Amino acid sequence: MKIKPLDDRVLVEPLEEVESRTSSGIIIPDTAKEKPRIGIVIAVGTDEDLQSKIKEGDKILFAKYGGEEIEMNGKEYRIISRSDILAVIED
Amino acid sequence: MKIKPLDDRVLVEPLEEVESRTSSGIIIPDTAKEKPRIGIVIAVGTDEDLQSKIKEGDKILFAKYGGEEIEMNGKEYRIISRSDILAVIED
Amino acid sequence: MKIKPLDDRVLVEPLEEVESRTSSGIIIPDTAKEKPRIGIVIAVGTDEDLQSKIKEGDKILFAKYGGEEIEMNGKEYRIISRSDILAVIED
Amino acid sequence: MKIKPLDDRVLVEPLEEVESRTSSGIIIPDTAKEKPRIGIVIAVGTDEDLQSKIKEGDKILFAKYGGEEIEMNGKEYRIISRSDILAVIED
Amino acid sequence: MKIKPLDDRVLVEPLEEVESRTSSGIIIPDTAKEKPRIGIVIAVGTDEDLQSKIKEGDKILFAKYGGEEIEMNGKEYRIISRSDILAVIED
Amino acid sequence: MKIKPLDDRVLVEPLEEVESRTSSGIIIPDTAKEKPRIGIVIAVGTDEDLQSKIKEGDKILFAKYGGEEIEMNGKEYRIISRSDILAVIED
Amino acid sequence: MKIKPLDDRVLVEPLEEVESRTSSGIIIPDTAKEKPRIGIVIAVGTDEDLQSKIKEGDKILFAKYGGEEIEMNGKEYRIISRSDILAVIED
Repeated sequence: MKIKPLDDRVLVEPLEEVESRTSSGIIIPDTAKEKPRIGIVIAVGTDEDLQSKIKEGDKILFAKYGGEEIEMNGKEYRIISRSDILAVIED
Repeated sequence: MKIKPLDDRVLVEPLEEVESRTSSGIIIPDTAKEKPRIGIVIAVGTDEDLQSKIKEGDKILFAKYGGEEIEMNGKEYRIISRSDILAVIED
Repeated sequence: MKIKPLDDRVLVEPLEEVESRTSSGIIIPDTAKEKPRIGIVIAVGTDEDLQSKIKEGDKILFAKYGGEEIEMNGKEYRIISRSDILAVIED
Repeated sequence: MKIKPLDDRVLVEPLEEVESRTSSGIIIPDTAKEKPRIGIVIAVGTDEDLQSKIKEGDKILFAKYGGEEIEMNGKEYRIISRSDILAVIED
Repeated sequence: MKIKPLDDRVLVEPLEEVESRTSSGIIIPDTAKEKPRIGIVIAVGTDEDLQSKIKEGDKILFAKYGGEEIEMNGKEYRIISRSDILAVIED
Repeated sequence: MKIKPLDDRVLVEPLEEVESRTSSGIIIPDTAKEKPRIGIVIAVGTDEDLQSKIKEGDKILFAKYGGEEIEMNGKEYRIISRSDILAVIED
Repeated sequence: MKIKPLDDRVLVEPLEEVESRTSSGIIIPDTAKEKPRIGIVIAVGTDEDLQSKIKEGDKILFAKYGGEEIEMNGKEYRIISRSDILAVIED
């Protein structure tokens, strides 16, 4: 089963906070109400301009309450609109 | 009787949660207030760009409170705007 | 007397729910607050693109609270904006 | 004294409900809060596209609370924006 | 001292209601909360399209709460945006 | 130290009301809540169209609550967006 | 680890107020609720027009509540949208 986001959305698998610890650094969202979160891009929407900027496998930082949550095969995923994608994280 | 959506809307037949169990996986919306849902596209609106991305028979994921409900021959359907279509699901 | 809607509006004569029973099916709006309704298009606005999609005599589905009600010769009519027209219904 | 509306507005002289009875029919707005009303166009704004659709002397249907009221020589008039003009009425 | 409005604004000197009595008619705003008012245009903004429609010395009708009040040499003036200018009045 | 506003903003040094008294007149904002104020333009943003209309040293009238206040070397300044600049004042 | 902002956002490292004291001046935001703050640009988003105006290493003034806070390697950073960047500060 494959989920293909429409338009300028991406499907992400959110990382547990402990998983966001990398070899070169740690990103910990602060405790503010609108804290950003990190996830791995599983699929990019049909928008060509977005496809030129975000790829499958990219690690992205997104605004926590910006997307829609879905559960698939027991795992939680999110569908995030471009306006809620803050940055791409490179290790 | 045929319902032909106008502009960028689609007519969908929502799937029961049990029906959303497929051979390759299960999608279960979480219990958040704005949980997305799954349906089969019965008809696509007159917008040509949308017609190039969504076809009759596609299984789509949509935001629950985004559309209008109608009942036809005892079955529930929904008319969903493009902005509430999150993704196409391929089995 | 003739009412010619301006821009992207249509004039419709709403159908009684019993009248919306057709040879091939019945559409019954659910009891949700924003239930869609059915009507016959009496006149289409001056917008050319809309005229290419909706014709006099078409049966349309529209969002209930989207238009303005008027009474003419004892009958109730509605003037509906394009954004509140959900679909065209073909028998 | 002449009032020339700017942009996409028209100056109308609202008709008393009794005056809206014509040889061929009667239009009576329903009792809903946002009931439309009828008036005679006294002057059309500077917008050329609007001038091609609405003429002085036209009888128009407009949303009641859409315009601004003024009184001139003891008579009440209204200045209505295009977005509040619903239709042109022909006898 | 000269005030030159920016963009699509005009500087007006509001007329006292008694002053709005002209040889050919009287305009008296009704008592509604958003009553329009009359003023003489002292200066027109930098927007060229507006300059082609409104001139210094024009008498205009504007929405009362649409502009900003300033006092200069003991007289009250208003700076009004184009969207709050309803009409030009010709005697 | 120099502050260079971005896009369509200007940096202004607000004038005390007593300073706004000039050889040819006095501008005193009224006591309304949204009273406009006067300032000297210290720097103009990167927007070229704005640069063609507002220069360093210009005295401008702006809506009081439209900008952001900063303090630099003990003096108060404001960064004002174009939409809050009402007019240029010439002595 | 590198954070690459998307579209018209920048990543900034906010300066402590004491750090914002420079050889040529001090900027102290006032105590208003929406006080602007100062930071060093660590990375500029993918938007080419923004890249022509803001560079890595620039000191910028931004609206305090306009961005999203993140913590990386024990330091606080912010991702700021262009609409919340008020000015570039040059020493």
